Amino acid sequence: MIFTEGQIFEHIFVVSDEIYNGFGSLFNDRNPLHTDEEFARNKGFRGAVMYGNILNGFLSFFIGELLPTKHVIIHSQEINYKNAVYINDKLNFKATVEGVFESVNVVEFKYSFVNEDKKTVAKGKISIGII
Amino acid sequence: MIFTEGQIFEHIFVVSDEIYNGFGSLFNDRNPLHTDEEFARNKGFRGAVMYGNILNGFLSFFIGELLPTKHVIIHSQEINYKNAVYINDKLNFKATVEGVFESVNVVEFKYSFVNEDKKTVAKGKISIGII
Repeated sequence: MIFTEGQIFEHIFVVSDEIYNGFGSLFNDRNPLHTDEEFARNKGFRGAVMYGNILNGFLSFFIGELLPTKHVIIHSQEINYKNAVYINDKLNFKATVEGVFESVNVVEFKYSFVNEDKKTVAKGKISIGII
Repeated sequence: MIFTEGQIFEHIFVVSDEIYNGFGSLFNDRNPLHTDEEFARNKGFRGAVMYGNILNGFLSFFIGELLPTKHVIIHSQEINYKNAVYINDKLNFKATVEGVFESVNVVEFKYSFVNEDKKTVAKGKISIGII
Protein backbone atom coordinates (compact mmCIF):
# COMPACT_ATOMS: atom_id res chain seq x y z
CA MET A 1 0.00 0.00 0.00
CA ILE A 2 1.42 3.38 -1.04
CA PHE A 3 -0.53 5.26 1.63
CA THR A 4 0.39 5.44 5.30
CA GLU A 5 -1.47 6.92 8.27
CA GLY A 6 -0.47 10.49 8.97
CA GLN A 7 0.68 11.14 5.39
CA ILE A 8 -0.10 14.74 4.36
CA PHE A 9 -1.04 16.28 1.01
CA GLU A 10 -1.23 20.03 0.47
CA HIS A 11 -2.27 22.29 -2.36
CA ILE A 12 -3.32 25.89 -2.91
CA PHE A 13 -6.65 26.45 -4.68
CA VAL A 14 -7.79 29.86 -5.92
CA VAL A 15 -11.48 30.63 -6.36
CA SER A 16 -10.96 32.58 -9.59
CA ASP A 17 -13.57 34.43 -11.64
CA GLU A 18 -13.33 31.62 -14.15
CA ILE A 19 -14.16 28.97 -11.53
CA TYR A 20 -16.94 31.06 -9.98
CA ASN A 21 -18.62 32.00 -13.27
CA GLY A 22 -18.00 28.59 -14.79
CA PHE A 23 -19.60 26.79 -11.87
CA GLY A 24 -22.66 29.06 -11.89
CA SER A 25 -23.15 28.53 -15.63
CA LEU A 26 -22.51 24.80 -15.58
CA PHE A 27 -24.98 24.01 -12.81
CA ASN A 28 -27.33 26.95 -13.43
CA ASP A 29 -27.37 27.97 -9.76
CA ARG A 30 -28.27 31.69 -9.68
CA ASN A 31 -29.23 31.88 -6.01
CA PRO A 32 -28.88 35.55 -4.99
CA LEU A 33 -26.49 34.71 -2.14
CA HIS A 34 -24.00 33.83 -4.90
CA THR A 35 -24.98 36.38 -7.55
CA ASP A 36 -26.37 39.51 -5.84
CA GLU A 37 -23.84 41.53 -3.80
CA GLU A 38 -26.53 43.54 -2.05
CA PHE A 39 -28.55 40.46 -1.08
CA ALA A 40 -25.40 38.87 0.37
CA ARG A 41 -24.43 42.04 2.27
CA ASN A 42 -27.92 42.28 3.72
CA LYS A 43 -27.35 38.77 5.08
CA GLY A 44 -24.18 39.89 6.84
CA PHE A 45 -21.57 38.79 4.30
CA ARG A 46 -19.00 41.14 2.81
CA GLY A 47 -19.86 40.22 -0.76
CA ALA A 48 -21.28 37.47 -2.92
CA VAL A 49 -20.65 34.12 -1.25
CA MET A 50 -18.93 31.55 -3.45
CA TYR A 51 -20.75 28.28 -4.18
CA GLY A 52 -19.74 25.80 -1.48
CA ASN A 53 -19.68 23.02 -4.02
CA ILE A 54 -16.74 24.63 -5.79
CA LEU A 55 -14.74 23.13 -2.91
CA ASN A 56 -16.12 19.70 -3.82
CA GLY A 57 -14.82 20.30 -7.34
CA PHE A 58 -11.39 20.97 -5.82
CA LEU A 59 -11.69 17.65 -3.97
CA SER A 60 -12.27 15.97 -7.34
CA PHE A 61 -8.94 17.39 -8.55
CA PHE A 62 -7.22 16.35 -5.31
CA ILE A 63 -8.34 12.73 -5.55
CA GLY A 64 -8.03 12.48 -9.34
CA GLU A 65 -4.74 14.26 -9.83
CA LEU A 66 -2.72 14.86 -6.65
CA LEU A 67 -2.38 11.37 -5.21
CA PRO A 68 0.60 9.09 -5.94
CA THR A 69 -1.68 6.75 -7.94
CA LYS A 70 -4.38 7.36 -10.55
CA HIS A 71 -6.06 4.02 -9.71
CA VAL A 72 -8.62 5.45 -7.32
CA ILE A 73 -12.35 6.02 -6.99
CA ILE A 74 -14.25 8.06 -4.39
CA HIS A 75 -16.54 6.06 -2.08
CA SER A 76 -17.91 8.86 0.08
CA GLN A 77 -17.36 12.47 1.06
CA GLU A 78 -18.53 14.84 3.73
CA ILE A 79 -18.03 18.57 4.00
CA ASN A 80 -18.83 21.06 6.75
CA TYR A 81 -18.87 24.72 5.77
CA LYS A 82 -17.51 26.94 8.53
CA ASN A 83 -16.89 30.39 6.99
CA ALA A 84 -17.84 32.09 3.73
CA VAL A 85 -15.51 31.95 0.73
CA TYR A 86 -15.25 35.07 -1.48
CA ILE A 87 -14.07 35.69 -5.02
CA ASN A 88 -10.28 35.34 -5.46
CA ASP A 89 -9.83 33.69 -2.06
CA LYS A 90 -6.66 31.63 -1.95
CA LEU A 91 -7.34 28.48 0.03
CA ASN A 92 -4.74 26.28 1.65
CA PHE A 93 -5.94 22.73 1.29
CA LYS A 94 -4.50 20.07 3.58
CA ALA A 95 -5.49 16.41 3.64
CA THR A 96 -4.19 13.83 6.11
CA VAL A 97 -4.48 10.06 5.75
CA GLU A 98 -6.57 8.98 8.75
CA GLY A 99 -6.99 5.33 7.97
CA VAL A 100 -5.55 2.68 5.64
CA PHE A 101 -7.57 -0.52 5.31
CA GLU A 102 -5.42 -2.82 3.19
CA SER A 103 -7.73 -5.84 3.15
CA VAL A 104 -10.45 -3.83 1.41
CA ASN A 105 -8.17 -1.32 -0.40
CA VAL A 106 -9.74 1.66 1.29
CA VAL A 107 -8.03 4.89 2.36
CA GLU A 108 -9.67 7.59 4.47
CA PHE A 109 -8.61 11.22 4.59
CA LYS A 110 -9.62 14.18 6.69
CA TYR A 111 -9.13 17.55 5.05
CA SER A 112 -9.50 21.28 5.57
CA PHE A 113 -9.53 24.47 3.47
CA VAL A 114 -8.04 27.50 5.25
CA ASN A 115 -8.18 31.06 3.87
CA GLU A 116 -5.49 33.76 3.99
CA ASP A 117 -6.92 35.07 7.29
CA LYS A 118 -6.17 31.60 8.75
CA LYS A 119 -9.87 30.87 9.02
CA THR A 120 -10.98 27.32 8.27
CA VAL A 121 -13.67 27.77 5.63
CA ALA A 122 -14.53 24.07 5.34
CA LYS A 123 -13.45 20.68 6.57
CA GLY A 124 -14.52 17.10 6.18
CA LYS A 125 -13.60 13.55 5.24
CA ILE A 126 -13.19 11.53 2.05
CA SER A 127 -13.02 7.79 1.67
CA ILE A 128 -11.56 6.29 -1.52
CA GLY A 129 -10.99 2.86 -2.97
CA ILE A 130 -7.75 1.80 -4.63
CA ILE A 131 -8.88 0.03 -7.81
CA MET B 1 -41.32 27.67 8.85
CA ILE B 2 -42.09 26.78 5.23
CA PHE B 3 -40.57 23.30 5.55
CA THR B 4 -42.23 20.31 7.17
CA GLU B 5 -40.91 16.85 7.97
CA GLY B 6 -41.62 14.37 5.21
CA GLN B 7 -41.88 17.05 2.51
CA ILE B 8 -40.49 15.76 -0.80
CA PHE B 9 -38.66 17.50 -3.65
CA GLU B 10 -37.93 15.80 -6.96
CA HIS B 11 -36.04 16.70 -10.11
CA ILE B 12 -34.49 14.99 -13.10
CA PHE B 13 -30.82 15.73 -13.79
CA VAL B 14 -29.05 14.67 -16.99
CA VAL B 15 -25.29 14.17 -17.05
CA SER B 16 -24.87 15.76 -20.47
CA ASP B 17 -21.68 16.08 -22.53
CA GLU B 18 -21.69 19.75 -21.63
CA ILE B 19 -21.76 19.03 -17.89
CA TYR B 20 -19.15 16.26 -18.15
CA ASN B 21 -16.71 18.21 -20.32
CA GLY B 22 -17.37 21.46 -18.49
CA PHE B 23 -16.67 19.90 -15.10
CA GLY B 24 -13.42 18.27 -16.30
CA SER B 25 -12.20 21.57 -17.78
CA LEU B 26 -13.28 23.73 -14.85
CA PHE B 27 -11.56 21.63 -12.18
CA ASN B 28 -8.82 20.20 -14.39
CA ASP B 29 -9.45 16.62 -13.26
CA ARG B 30 -8.17 14.35 -16.03
CA ASN B 31 -8.02 11.14 -14.03
CA PRO B 32 -8.15 8.26 -16.55
CA LEU B 33 -11.19 6.69 -14.85
CA HIS B 34 -13.10 9.72 -16.16
CA THR B 35 -11.28 10.32 -19.44
CA ASP B 36 -9.93 6.99 -20.76
CA GLU B 37 -12.60 4.49 -21.87
CA GLU B 38 -10.13 1.60 -21.99
CA PHE B 39 -8.76 2.32 -18.51
CA ALA B 40 -12.31 2.42 -17.13
CA ARG B 41 -13.29 -0.82 -18.92
CA ASN B 42 -10.19 -2.54 -17.55
CA LYS B 43 -11.45 -1.59 -14.09
CA GLY B 44 -14.78 -3.30 -14.74
CA PHE B 45 -16.88 -0.31 -15.79
CA ARG B 46 -18.77 -0.14 -19.07
CA GLY B 47 -17.27 3.19 -20.04
CA ALA B 48 -15.74 6.36 -18.64
CA VAL B 49 -17.11 6.97 -15.15
CA MET B 50 -18.59 10.42 -14.62
CA TYR B 51 -17.05 12.66 -11.95
CA GLY B 52 -18.89 11.97 -8.70
CA ASN B 53 -18.73 15.63 -7.80
CA ILE B 54 -21.01 16.50 -10.71
CA LEU B 55 -23.74 15.24 -8.37
CA ASN B 56 -22.62 17.76 -5.76
CA GLY B 57 -23.03 20.44 -8.43
CA PHE B 58 -26.61 19.21 -8.90
CA LEU B 59 -27.10 19.56 -5.13
CA SER B 60 -26.00 23.19 -5.44
CA PHE B 61 -28.81 23.75 -7.97
CA PHE B 62 -31.29 21.91 -5.76
CA ILE B 63 -30.57 24.04 -2.68
CA GLY B 64 -30.07 27.28 -4.59
CA GLU B 65 -32.96 27.05 -7.01
CA LEU B 66 -35.55 24.37 -6.24
CA LEU B 67 -36.59 25.21 -2.69
CA PRO B 68 -39.59 27.45 -1.88
CA THR B 69 -37.21 30.13 -0.54
CA LYS B 70 -33.95 31.59 -1.85
CA HIS B 71 -32.88 32.62 1.67
CA VAL B 72 -30.76 29.56 2.34
CA ILE B 73 -27.15 28.54 2.87
CA ILE B 74 -25.65 25.05 3.02
CA HIS B 75 -24.15 24.04 6.39
CA SER B 76 -22.97 20.52 5.55
CA GLN B 77 -23.30 17.74 3.01
CA GLU B 78 -22.48 14.08 2.77
CA ILE B 79 -22.59 11.81 -0.24
CA ASN B 80 -22.13 8.06 -0.61
CA TYR B 81 -21.44 6.78 -4.13
CA LYS B 82 -23.11 3.42 -4.75
CA ASN B 83 -22.98 2.80 -8.52
CA ALA B 84 -21.16 4.37 -11.44
CA VAL B 85 -22.78 7.17 -13.46
CA TYR B 86 -22.19 7.23 -17.24
CA ILE B 87 -22.50 9.91 -19.90
CA ASN B 88 -26.11 10.91 -20.67
CA ASP B 89 -27.47 9.12 -17.60
CA LYS B 90 -30.80 10.58 -16.55
CA LEU B 91 -30.94 10.65 -12.77
CA ASN B 92 -34.07 10.89 -10.66
CA PHE B 93 -33.23 13.05 -7.71
CA LYS B 94 -35.44 12.87 -4.62
CA ALA B 95 -34.93 14.77 -1.38
CA THR B 96 -37.01 14.37 1.76
CA VAL B 97 -37.09 16.76 4.71
CA GLU B 98 -35.84 14.69 7.64
CA GLY B 99 -35.69 17.34 10.31
CA VAL B 100 -36.87 20.91 10.89
CA PHE B 101 -35.21 22.76 13.77
CA GLU B 102 -37.09 26.05 14.04
CA SER B 103 -35.21 27.53 16.98
CA VAL B 104 -31.95 27.50 14.98
CA ASN B 105 -33.48 27.81 11.48
CA VAL B 106 -31.97 24.55 10.30
CA VAL B 107 -33.50 22.05 7.87
CA GLU B 108 -32.05 18.60 7.18
CA PHE B 109 -32.70 16.58 4.03
CA LYS B 110 -31.84 13.08 2.97
CA TYR B 111 -31.57 12.56 -0.78
CA SER B 112 -30.88 9.98 -3.47
CA PHE B 113 -30.03 9.88 -7.17
CA VAL B 114 -31.51 6.88 -9.02
CA ASN B 115 -30.66 5.99 -12.63
CA GLU B 116 -32.96 4.64 -15.35
CA ASP B 117 -32.16 1.05 -14.34
CA LYS B 118 -33.61 1.92 -10.90
CA LYS B 119 -30.17 1.69 -9.35
CA THR B 120 -29.34 4.16 -6.61
CA VAL B 121 -26.11 5.77 -7.81
CA ALA B 122 -25.64 7.98 -4.77
CA LYS B 123 -27.35 9.06 -1.58
CA GLY B 124 -26.64 11.26 1.38
CA LYS B 125 -27.72 14.16 3.57
CA ILE B 126 -27.67 17.94 3.41
CA SER B 127 -28.17 20.40 6.22
CA ILE B 128 -29.08 24.01 5.42
CA GLY B 129 -29.71 27.19 7.30
CA ILE B 130 -32.60 29.55 6.58
CA ILE B 131 -31.02 33.02 6.57
